Amino acid sequence: MENKTFDELLLPVRQDIDRIDKQLLQLFIERMECAERVAEIKRQAGIPVLNAAREQVILDRVRQEAGAYGDSAVALYSSIMAISRARQHTMLESGGALRALEQNSPRHRLQNPRIICQGVPGAYSHGAAKRLFPDAVPAFLPGFCDVFEAVRDGKGDYGVVPVENSDAGSVSEVYDLIMRHRMYIVGAADIPIRHCLCRATGTGPVRRVISKQEALAQCSAYLERSGIAGEAFSNTAAAAKYVAENRPEGLGAICSAEAAAAYGLETVAADIQNTDNNCTRFVVIAREAVLPDDADKISLCFSLPHTTGSLYRTLERFALNGLNLTKIESRPIPGRNFEYDFYLDFTGNIHDAPTRALICALSDEMPRFSFLGNYRES
Amino acid sequence: MENKTFDELLLPVRQDIDRIDKQLLQLFIERMECAERVAEIKRQAGIPVLNAAREQVILDRVRQEAGAYGDSAVALYSSIMAISRARQHTMLESGGALRALEQNSPRHRLQNPRIICQGVPGAYSHGAAKRLFPDAVPAFLPGFCDVFEAVRDGKGDYGVVPVENSDAGSVSEVYDLIMRHRMYIVGAADIPIRHCLCRATGTGPVRRVISKQEALAQCSAYLERSGIAGEAFSNTAAAAKYVAENRPEGLGAICSAEAAAAYGLETVAADIQNTDNNCTRFVVIAREAVLPDDADKISLCFSLPHTTGSLYRTLERFALNGLNLTKIESRPIPGRNFEYDFYLDFTGNIHDAPTRALICALSDEMPRFSFLGNYRES
Repeated sequence: MENKTFDELLLPVRQDIDRIDKQLLQLFIERMECAERVAEIKRQAGIPVLNAAREQVILDRVRQEAGAYGDSAVALYSSIMAISRARQHTMLESGGALRALEQNSPRHRLQNPRIICQGVPGAYSHGAAKRLFPDAVPAFLPGFCDVFEAVRDGKGDYGVVPVENSDAGSVSEVYDLIMRHRMYIVGAADIPIRHCLCRATGTGPVRRVISKQEALAQCSAYLERSGIAGEAFSNTAAAAKYVAENRPEGLGAICSAEAAAAYGLETVAADIQNTDNNCTRFVVIAREAVLPDDADKISLCFSLPHTTGSLYRTLERFALNGLNLTKIESRPIPGRNFEYDFYLDFTGNIHDAPTRALICALSDEMPRFSFLGNYRES
Repeated sequence: MENKTFDELLLPVRQDIDRIDKQLLQLFIERMECAERVAEIKRQAGIPVLNAAREQVILDRVRQEAGAYGDSAVALYSSIMAISRARQHTMLESGGALRALEQNSPRHRLQNPRIICQGVPGAYSHGAAKRLFPDAVPAFLPGFCDVFEAVRDGKGDYGVVPVENSDAGSVSEVYDLIMRHRMYIVGAADIPIRHCLCRATGTGPVRRVISKQEALAQCSAYLERSGIAGEAFSNTAAAAKYVAENRPEGLGAICSAEAAAAYGLETVAADIQNTDNNCTRFVVIAREAVLPDDADKISLCFSLPHTTGSLYRTLERFALNGLNLTKIESRPIPGRNFEYDFYLDFTGNIHDAPTRALICALSDEMPRFSFLGNYRES
């Protein structure tokens, strides 16, 4: 390092790299052209794109030939083959059923739909329904399965249900219901969770408060500061209802402003949650897909074995199409070792040709693949 | 297609591909050797591996030169550079702080540790504590934050807390606490959720039942079949306690067998959940890392912007090391648009040199990166 600067030392290596890259890129382009010739032959013969056996032969060979660089060469070729396949699928127009759905689904949601929520008026899903359908008066049913059954039976047009850590349920149950009833997601909104402390008018200073356990935890700083003891209750709106009906002296409820209003309670303090960043994600479920021209979010569910790298190779294909992942969650499939369901949200619109080609290709290739919807965030 | 078979048609293309691959692989190996020369120069100069500006120059150039194959070429080169970086990091021994942690942490958990759980005796976390520490008698504290504070203050050695859809809490709250208190995960177990219906002895046939809302939903088939009405209560063990203390006629509780035993209740029916596949994942948290020689699971948390493909390029590096992803979950970072925290579990052991090199490299490269622990599943 004595006399040469760092850049001077690097210069000859970088020149070598640039020379290698020129040739390597030329070969890569030739290889892509070959992939297109293969796709054309397959198209004429009506043969699917993926030939796992041929790919494995290539991977085995490059591992051998690359010697000490075997792992790296396998990684390189896995990439090259994923890139080839993506181009071939675009040429071959895979995924017939999904292609038909894309062409035949309505582009607009119903006018004046009948909306169904879980819980009781004033629950956070009530606020979500108001945001998503400002003119609708939602009906309420006790359980999530009741909401899904009502939509399935045509007693309502759309259901509004939470899909992430929320006041009223867990992602698993709602996603399970979406899959079991083969529902589509036709809308979504993130609703901020804002708690208030309220009481029945004229019942004096609040010394104890009831609410759902999670809501109490989310307001712990305020409760500690105010010297108010918390007690767990089944849910926030039910707590508000209990306080309104029984008017207990010194007992308040923590709930949404909507719940306080619905049960005629007096608000002692608003926005008492520890942080303002707590959101719950709600989706709109429907029997039929709705695929608007301005949809910007795609929801998918698929299964993958956790063989090394299977997930990243799938994500790579979304990245190749410029689609951004905005949510991913894995769930082990009961009874199957090392096989997982993935729930993913991507930016994108299925009417866009390369995006449609990708989703259609995946629906052909994967044994368990569900297109859950393409909608616009509210 | 008249006279030639499909394979005969494909043969000349495949021969072209094989010829291209031979040359391409040779160039790739030369490029890897260049990467090692660069790493050696960087090591002598004490300069970090990642040179984002140089990588962007290369990506821009290949996009231009590849013409219609621009996107594919960028994908190829992103892969090549990730593979290079992985090799360079292994040579350079990045990640000093984490490397020290790996060398200096104890390899065994404490003998006869003091265990702390959230909730009341008979809660599902009680069962988890028994499975993880068969000889310990856990102490119970009301909230998750109480458990973390007790461990932080040395009032207990280990906390046992749920991290996935569970009877007592949500993943978010517990992961937030792990991060806020900079705790380590030193053990984990998946505990099956088995509900039973119980009552106070001599209180007659059960016509109504109280339990946590989620537990009622998980037993909906049994309740419907038996004509028993469900009513939401704050949690399962508290419902058992209420029934034991008040001995109401015709009212039962749905809870764990442990809770029924703890409160002296009589079991009317066991295993009444709809499916037997419902598990809750519990982890053991501690102030100091414990890194056993036979650890098989690594937990990480890191942030990524959702620029196209950033996640898959990171996952690719785990795949390059043969590490399997067993859990992934994304959470938006409040107040930052399109930036996300990822919680991931991988198979692997940090004492294994390539695995250590990867984790250390990521800890150097990523602005927010936390190694949460390396432990054996119980």
